[in-house]
Amino acid sequence: MIVVMKTAATKEHVDAIIDRVEAIGCKTHIIVGAERTVIGVIGDGRAIDQRQLSRMIGVETIVPISKPYKGASREFKPEDTHIQVGDIVIGGKDLVVMAGPCSIEGRTALLEVAHAVKEAGAHILRGGAYKPRSSPYSFQGLGEEGLRYLAEAREATGMPVITEVMDPALVPLVCEYADILQIGARNMQNYALLNAVGKSGFPVLLKRSFSGTIEEWLMSAEYILSHGNNNVMLCERGIRANETETRNTFDINAIPVIKNLSHLPIIADPSHATGKWEYVGAGAKAAVAAGADGVILEVHPHPEDAWSDGRQSLKPEKFARLVEQMRAVAVAVERDIPSTRVPAGLNGHNVSTLPPAF
Amino acid sequence: MIVVMKTAATKEHVDAIIDRVEAIGCKTHIIVGAERTVIGVIGDGRAIDQRQLSRMIGVETIVPISKPYKGASREFKPEDTHIQVGDIVIGGKDLVVMAGPCSIEGRTALLEVAHAVKEAGAHILRGGAYKPRSSPYSFQGLGEEGLRYLAEAREATGMPVITEVMDPALVPLVCEYADILQIGARNMQNYALLNAVGKSGFPVLLKRSFSGTIEEWLMSAEYILSHGNNNVMLCERGIRANETETRNTFDINAIPVIKNLSHLPIIADPSHATGKWEYVGAGAKAAVAAGADGVILEVHPHPEDAWSDGRQSLKPEKFARLVEQMRAVAVAVERDIPSTRVPAGLNGHNVSTLPPAF
Amino acid sequence: MIVVMKTAATKEHVDAIIDRVEAIGCKTHIIVGAERTVIGVIGDGRAIDQRQLSRMIGVETIVPISKPYKGASREFKPEDTHIQVGDIVIGGKDLVVMAGPCSIEGRTALLEVAHAVKEAGAHILRGGAYKPRSSPYSFQGLGEEGLRYLAEAREATGMPVITEVMDPALVPLVCEYADILQIGARNMQNYALLNAVGKSGFPVLLKRSFSGTIEEWLMSAEYILSHGNNNVMLCERGIRANETETRNTFDINAIPVIKNLSHLPIIADPSHATGKWEYVGAGAKAAVAAGADGVILEVHPHPEDAWSDGRQSLKPEKFARLVEQMRAVAVAVERDIPSTRVPAGLNGHNVSTLPPAF
Amino acid sequence: MIVVMKTAATKEHVDAIIDRVEAIGCKTHIIVGAERTVIGVIGDGRAIDQRQLSRMIGVETIVPISKPYKGASREFKPEDTHIQVGDIVIGGKDLVVMAGPCSIEGRTALLEVAHAVKEAGAHILRGGAYKPRSSPYSFQGLGEEGLRYLAEAREATGMPVITEVMDPALVPLVCEYADILQIGARNMQNYALLNAVGKSGFPVLLKRSFSGTIEEWLMSAEYILSHGNNNVMLCERGIRANETETRNTFDINAIPVIKNLSHLPIIADPSHATGKWEYVGAGAKAAVAAGADGVILEVHPHPEDAWSDGRQSLKPEKFARLVEQMRAVAVAVERDIPSTRVPAGLNGHNVSTLPPAF
Repeated sequence: MIVVMKTAATKEHVDAIIDRVEAIGCKTHIIVGAERTVIGVIGDGRAIDQRQLSRMIGVETIVPISKPYKGASREFKPEDTHIQVGDIVIGGKDLVVMAGPCSIEGRTALLEVAHAVKEAGAHILRGGAYKPRSSPYSFQGLGEEGLRYLAEAREATGMPVITEVMDPALVPLVCEYADILQIGARNMQNYALLNAVGKSGFPVLLKRSFSGTIEEWLMSAEYILSHGNNNVMLCERGIRANETETRNTFDINAIPVIKNLSHLPIIADPSHATGKWEYVGAGAKAAVAAGADGVILEVHPHPEDAWSDGRQSLKPEKFARLVEQMRAVAVAVERDIPSTRVPAGLNGHNVSTLPPAF
Repeated sequence: MIVVMKTAATKEHVDAIIDRVEAIGCKTHIIVGAERTVIGVIGDGRAIDQRQLSRMIGVETIVPISKPYKGASREFKPEDTHIQVGDIVIGGKDLVVMAGPCSIEGRTALLEVAHAVKEAGAHILRGGAYKPRSSPYSFQGLGEEGLRYLAEAREATGMPVITEVMDPALVPLVCEYADILQIGARNMQNYALLNAVGKSGFPVLLKRSFSGTIEEWLMSAEYILSHGNNNVMLCERGIRANETETRNTFDINAIPVIKNLSHLPIIADPSHATGKWEYVGAGAKAAVAAGADGVILEVHPHPEDAWSDGRQSLKPEKFARLVEQMRAVAVAVERDIPSTRVPAGLNGHNVSTLPPAF
Repeated sequence: MIVVMKTAATKEHVDAIIDRVEAIGCKTHIIVGAERTVIGVIGDGRAIDQRQLSRMIGVETIVPISKPYKGASREFKPEDTHIQVGDIVIGGKDLVVMAGPCSIEGRTALLEVAHAVKEAGAHILRGGAYKPRSSPYSFQGLGEEGLRYLAEAREATGMPVITEVMDPALVPLVCEYADILQIGARNMQNYALLNAVGKSGFPVLLKRSFSGTIEEWLMSAEYILSHGNNNVMLCERGIRANETETRNTFDINAIPVIKNLSHLPIIADPSHATGKWEYVGAGAKAAVAAGADGVILEVHPHPEDAWSDGRQSLKPEKFARLVEQMRAVAVAVERDIPSTRVPAGLNGHNVSTLPPAF
Repeated sequence: MIVVMKTAATKEHVDAIIDRVEAIGCKTHIIVGAERTVIGVIGDGRAIDQRQLSRMIGVETIVPISKPYKGASREFKPEDTHIQVGDIVIGGKDLVVMAGPCSIEGRTALLEVAHAVKEAGAHILRGGAYKPRSSPYSFQGLGEEGLRYLAEAREATGMPVITEVMDPALVPLVCEYADILQIGARNMQNYALLNAVGKSGFPVLLKRSFSGTIEEWLMSAEYILSHGNNNVMLCERGIRANETETRNTFDINAIPVIKNLSHLPIIADPSHATGKWEYVGAGAKAAVAAGADGVILEVHPHPEDAWSDGRQSLKPEKFARLVEQMRAVAVAVERDIPSTRVPAGLNGHNVSTLPPAF
């Protein structure tokens, strides 16, 4: 931590800072510049409340040097985290494709789309049983009934399932049915919920909030990790900027930034990041090219009848074609999207002769 | 709702929309323009999922005409909502001043600051027992112990108390101690929590989220109102924009906009909206001038020792002077901030001839 | 300037930085921390390109310590700048009110509104002869014809006039007619234009750009000041954030921040900062309460017929009432808005015993 | 255009709107809804000032239906625009790579980098002679001397050159040396400059401003097109959002959105869009995958010595590798980046045996 003093700060002001910092067990180092004095604080600055110190007389500003996150940082764990979900490994060379409807609308409809996305190349089935809706008058999801259909679709297709949980009290229930817990953008800093999913030990997909910085996002991951749950994957789903042609602004930069700062896998959600099905394909291919470890996509057989987010859902045929296109891009950047059409081995770019790892 | 068709849309596309809309019980009205056809939908557009309809072939975009909120709208309830908290009425001619520390740090400290802010002119005591911190390693609040101190400070000073609740499961506990429940910015769209405080019937101060629009904020209020809890006050606490000199960007426009669109009281939080104590006074006076129904301010006797947010806390002397300045501005805009120093005991928000008092 | 090294940086990396920095004539000071080494650079960091240095191997980031602006900084000129325009002083205890139509629409119309705003309490007449319009098909202003009408209105009313200039080549022409040159938000970083108005020596009102930071804004002022033209006033006119109920987001914080960081006067433009006439009054009063040195307002006798920005223009009666309200707020914060109705003729900004007058 | 009336609007208010609109020669169509009346305006709404109409009594809001741009719209010109620059076609199946230093620093340095980028696969040389710098104290470019070096580099390498122009008065001079004129982000709405480059007839690369919407960007293109200059390419260079890990937020969505709304070519600038060389590669590959018609990249042999923007410049070796990677991605999305290593044909993915099309 660096404490930058005002030009008008006196020696007494500087001494007061030194006393305060040393009282916490840190050492100080003074640099007297032409205009200002700067105090370097040596030791674990995390012990010091930065905003508190910045209030002391004569202080212009505080510059943190250490990252506020440790568990999520690549500096402390250089190798990539791999998350095992059934036979699937997330965060390795192979990319994962998660797909399914925004909301679970019924048993038959879910089974239909589950088979369709499996056939089209998805590895994991997504579907919302509890839906965060900005209006209390909108459809809020089928709840546990939806979870049961989801579990049934898993049985029928062999695909692990991911679904959102919004209430800490419901985490145990959702864990009975789901393979991956999704934390939505609105709940990125819902700490009661982060603690609950942290304690569950279940794999978590943590979406970035509408205006969350990457540092805040990693700090929210840190909440989950702090419970010893290392199965955290991050999900970029678009942030808010001035643009109105798209529902959100897809921060494609977040993908290489996360790969640089953290060892956690990064998944892209081009459906929400664009909000319009006609732009989803471009976003998905861009995410793969930028280094994402997977994508999560909304697919619906009849988007114009979808109970939520039909505007951004792909039809299964379009999704199938997009998987092929994403695979071509993945190969171009020296990764792969394993085929789900086992036992083929026909997947020409697969260098392995082993049974499909997915 | 207006459905704008693409220039290339055919009669069949238009007819499909009409069929769909009329099936829901709405009527349609077609306008054939030079370049496009536009379909007016007559009836309660809230019954129709806008994003779903926008997916139909030939549709360029959907323009909602009705507001998505009803209970919070001034169109449906023209007169201002007044919220009674003890002897205090929030939302009337008189402004309310809420003040106290960011975090409750201990029994003695809280009592000290409670007496100080009462003496300086506050009507309601604020203090956090459960603190939303971006780092899991930061102080998270004293929890129920803090709530007990808060209740004791209420006894000692006669001031009602406001405190944040973050976990739906803790709402009943917090209601045992608090007079007003605060929903923090990070939880503006935590629907499980909104439902829980809605059901509680307790007065709620709902903070706007970091990048929440005014419409989303009113929709979150609608969640609480939908449980029959009409005691909702909104709190503008700064939003995110590009500026970095201040912690947040104080959207002063939100004050007259809320007064125009809604009947709910609007409170300003200049401490968070600026993030630096030296700018808090300007923000507080501006809020009063713009028409806020009250302000909530962080006050700490020793901000440089505060366990959180000392950077933006006022010392009691500064706070006392600010209350005087705010009162002068309130009077200039034909409102008032009742003094807390008079023995009155009478609710001063009516145009009585008694000495000013709350 | 502080150079923060990566945790993995070697002694060689550190030495290379030292060599580079010392070659420019600065001194260095090394702090070896628990995780990282930090290099303090002593001397005028402005001589070093921060982004260049940040590219050297082993560097994590660079933290500037000195402000990049000097001429605009209050650290280098503690006392407020006063700008004299005719008999009016901008930046003193008295606030200035500038008002008039968005666009100059004709001779008669301008004279009508000029007399109306003077009567209602304006000190300076605004009016656009060159209009920056987002569409090439919109009315672009009357050009020099408009300037002539403006000069005529000045003769008729005695008010100095302010008007926008957009093309460096037109600065000399505009200077023939105007008293203050306005730089619009779109041109805040149009350096050719800033240089041209800097050289002119004329008073300049520099609007903040749509997403410009306060630092960038002060740097743009620095361009003008660097030509020896000290007559720069800054104008906050709203920035872009997520909110759509208002045309822009009025960054009220900018007012105390500018007063703190700079000695230059700060003017508020609530017409653009809100974009809707019904919110202009609240914004104007808030600006005065927050410490602005003046306001600039759009006034039009028949806003529904205005050729541009009628949505945000006040009618003269509303404007007259607003001036009274702003004056009450100004007095409440121990400043004043001198009346234009007194015959005084004396410059009322000094603490004279004469009746208030500009 | 749709005029939405307030719930409280009377028949007189509606009639006044009808009179106004019909006076301009448009027809109206009234829809009386449950809560509100809506007036459809048939005819060219561009003739009506939307903000003016919105001021009329009883109007809630105005919804434009027609796009404000015509010349830039794909609705009016469905086929892609191809821009010929020397032997190169921009906007066709083949992607274009523009590369070079941020600033031209001297004759020898420019020739060195020009040969290096040509060898590495660039088709067009970029280099700044006039530099927009936020500080008046920073290096502002070599001016005409730089332009001469640029022209010399073109002679030496055969590559066309692109360079920024900032002052309308300098457009003729820059046209003497350059093949493509670049309008920087700060000048996207500098209408005097847009008019000047529009009149020049020269190809223009128009960068998006820091917070410009796509619609505003297309409107700025419309300024250039309105002079009959159809050689406009758009350049996405990152916008401002909350994220601070990167210099800007790369709005990758803008690429498919522009391809959908407009026929103009879209170029990506990952150097500015990320601001850090380590993220440039991911951004460049993502842009190609998303459908960009080309990329513009900063390349410098010794970035740590660059006079500007060294932080985001690639070394020639890294750039060469990136061109190969981008080409692989281009092929994966069924496009191509033609090799500049004529007459090789060694470019394995090139299905043609013809001489290089570029």
